[in-house]
Amino acid sequence: MQGFPSAEQALADFFRAWEPKEQVELVPIDEAAWRVTAGTLYSENTLPVARISACDGIAVCSDRFADGAPDISKWRIGTDFVRADTGDDFEDRFDAVIAIEEVDLTEDGGISFISPDVEVEPGSNVRERGDSFWKGDLLIGENLPIRPTDLAALAMGGVTMVPVRKKPRAAFIPTGSELIPPQMRPKRGQNVDTNSLMAKHMLLGMGADPLLFPIVPDAKAELGNALDQALGESDIVIINAGSARGDEDFNARLLEQKGKLIHHYIAAAPGRPLALAVVNGKPVVNLPGPTMAAFFGLDWCVRAIINRYLRIPMPKRQRIQGKLMEDMHSTPHMAILCRMDVVKTANGYECYPRSFHSESLPLCMGTNAMYVSPIGESARDKGELIEVELLRGEEYLEGADGL
Amino acid sequence: MQGFPSAEQALADFFRAWEPKEQVELVPIDEAAWRVTAGTLYSENTLPVARISACDGIAVCSDRFADGAPDISKWRIGTDFVRADTGDDFEDRFDAVIAIEEVDLTEDGGISFISPDVEVEPGSNVRERGDSFWKGDLLIGENLPIRPTDLAALAMGGVTMVPVRKKPRAAFIPTGSELIPPQMRPKRGQNVDTNSLMAKHMLLGMGADPLLFPIVPDAKAELGNALDQALGESDIVIINAGSARGDEDFNARLLEQKGKLIHHYIAAAPGRPLALAVVNGKPVVNLPGPTMAAFFGLDWCVRAIINRYLRIPMPKRQRIQGKLMEDMHSTPHMAILCRMDVVKTANGYECYPRSFHSESLPLCMGTNAMYVSPIGESARDKGELIEVELLRGEEYLEGADGL
Repeated sequence: MQGFPSAEQALADFFRAWEPKEQVELVPIDEAAWRVTAGTLYSENTLPVARISACDGIAVCSDRFADGAPDISKWRIGTDFVRADTGDDFEDRFDAVIAIEEVDLTEDGGISFISPDVEVEPGSNVRERGDSFWKGDLLIGENLPIRPTDLAALAMGGVTMVPVRKKPRAAFIPTGSELIPPQMRPKRGQNVDTNSLMAKHMLLGMGADPLLFPIVPDAKAELGNALDQALGESDIVIINAGSARGDEDFNARLLEQKGKLIHHYIAAAPGRPLALAVVNGKPVVNLPGPTMAAFFGLDWCVRAIINRYLRIPMPKRQRIQGKLMEDMHSTPHMAILCRMDVVKTANGYECYPRSFHSESLPLCMGTNAMYVSPIGESARDKGELIEVELLRGEEYLEGADGL
Repeated sequence: MQGFPSAEQALADFFRAWEPKEQVELVPIDEAAWRVTAGTLYSENTLPVARISACDGIAVCSDRFADGAPDISKWRIGTDFVRADTGDDFEDRFDAVIAIEEVDLTEDGGISFISPDVEVEPGSNVRERGDSFWKGDLLIGENLPIRPTDLAALAMGGVTMVPVRKKPRAAFIPTGSELIPPQMRPKRGQNVDTNSLMAKHMLLGMGADPLLFPIVPDAKAELGNALDQALGESDIVIINAGSARGDEDFNARLLEQKGKLIHHYIAAAPGRPLALAVVNGKPVVNLPGPTMAAFFGLDWCVRAIINRYLRIPMPKRQRIQGKLMEDMHSTPHMAILCRMDVVKTANGYECYPRSFHSESLPLCMGTNAMYVSPIGESARDKGELIEVELLRGEEYLEGADGL
């Protein structure tokens, strides 16, 4: 087992053999949420377009206040002043706004009172053209997921068709004659295809466009057909399992025949027999079948490929430090994923390893954290402080009583 | 301004006046991703259903190995042994599996060799019924968002119609005669409705079901009609602005007439004039109009109401400590949102406040972090270390060169 490349090395080798083409599309602003910008975007608008009132009030000519309080007894609305509330435009002959709290308006369109304390100068309570921003101002940089506040910035700036990175289409081919869809009850010798559903929603979360294939039985010709179809329809192909029929190199040989096998077997477990290939210029990942192995391979390998398409960095999850509550053994020549349950106590966080060997598998799938042992590390002792990645937000470590 | 309740106090008062009804629905497993569980869910399945092979190999009767290596010269496939690969069921008369690497099979259905080192005992290389999990095992707890790995656990366990909290339907009513949709170019006196789009995608992210109303002009009757329609169609109503026509209490009075106004003006800025009411047993939030004020109100107030519906805790964003690069003034009797740009340097993180008063508004909307000054804090000095909440993942602080 020694001599297999690390996940990092395998990806570095893979990315030397394959570079994604730049694929950009324009989408309407309402469909741009969480898409990745394919360029730096600048405002087409200047706001306010013209000066506006900065408060609810009346617009006046400031020069009539130059020598102190004017005689307002004959002032008429529309002639000597106009109503101008927050954000309102008003005629160019007016140049200042007096707040509504400072005046008493009469029912017949006059004014009975202006506070003697009010200061009226050119531009009082007026927001100038461009006070919010100018045409040409930066709205958002390149290669950034578009958050709701960024949508607001794009809308302000009049960018309503947004250039974004095309979502890579990711075909997922579940293989195994023993597999049945989740809607069926498993009989003797059958197993549930859990990975299509998991992969679909992981891929959606990564910003890819998943294309789920039906279950392909363990037959060389059928797998070959599915692979050809998937290569025709997608930007990346994920074959899940398919090496279970007594011939571990079944898929690897198929990938070698059809393209270039970059690596088979990676020093990352569960899921060590993962294969990375380039076929017809497209990435093909052969992901091991067990659910935890498929999760890990999607997380470190498929995500890296999709992020390369989208030109975004790999996520850094929230991390906490906690006390390891059981001895944890790993294999120094492999990175090993260990699912963890983190519990908040009066003395800090406690971390319980949940092995997929010894525990109920759903318990292992459901943990709120995980730990990946770095290559070279052989064991961590009970009682040690370790740093784990959170798989739920930190707020879920608080316990239900906080709600 | 002193005497207004804090955001926490306002919400506490509001939640004394209003409790959501429990609303649960069953959704198919493929639609359950990121929904919130409305109950603790247990497995309906036991897997493996019956014992299976733990490796690729042949299934045999272990008792024939009890006295050492048996004579295999006359062994026939289907009689003395069968093929049994990983996950395969096999006939009950066999009780052990020998790995395929340890045997040589002949083309005519016999065996020419079994490694003399192989140990064959009852259960060798066999996974027992229930080895992965049993019917009745925990799949996922209550009030938890369903992640892709949780979907896999539910699929394994045969829970394919999933009880989840109903998404609260959130009506959003943008008001203001000056507003135009983002697709139009603003003319003098016009402003772009940025908040509908921002609110829609923030609400989607919170797990609500947004119902966007068209822009309602500043007219009491039209607003009243929209509010009535919204109350009829949704679980929570958000009125955005609508107090801009010279009468700050226009909406507050409408809410008082129709229901119970819990608070108007909160010690949280921008967006101090926020109003919280209960009308027809439903929450109504009057959110101030400016984009940053609307963002803050959605983030602290609307999110708290939606999370109460969904019975999930408020999120704890990733936080980093960085050096404040400018003096920052705040008002001790208010919590003040300050958008921040965090930059990673060789000496650690640097935090640049981006005021919505002094900077280009889109720059302020686009920051990667924010800071909310606690009530009681009046200023933070340049050079101080402050803890800020990240609005993009920590990986986006790394700079583009890492990719």
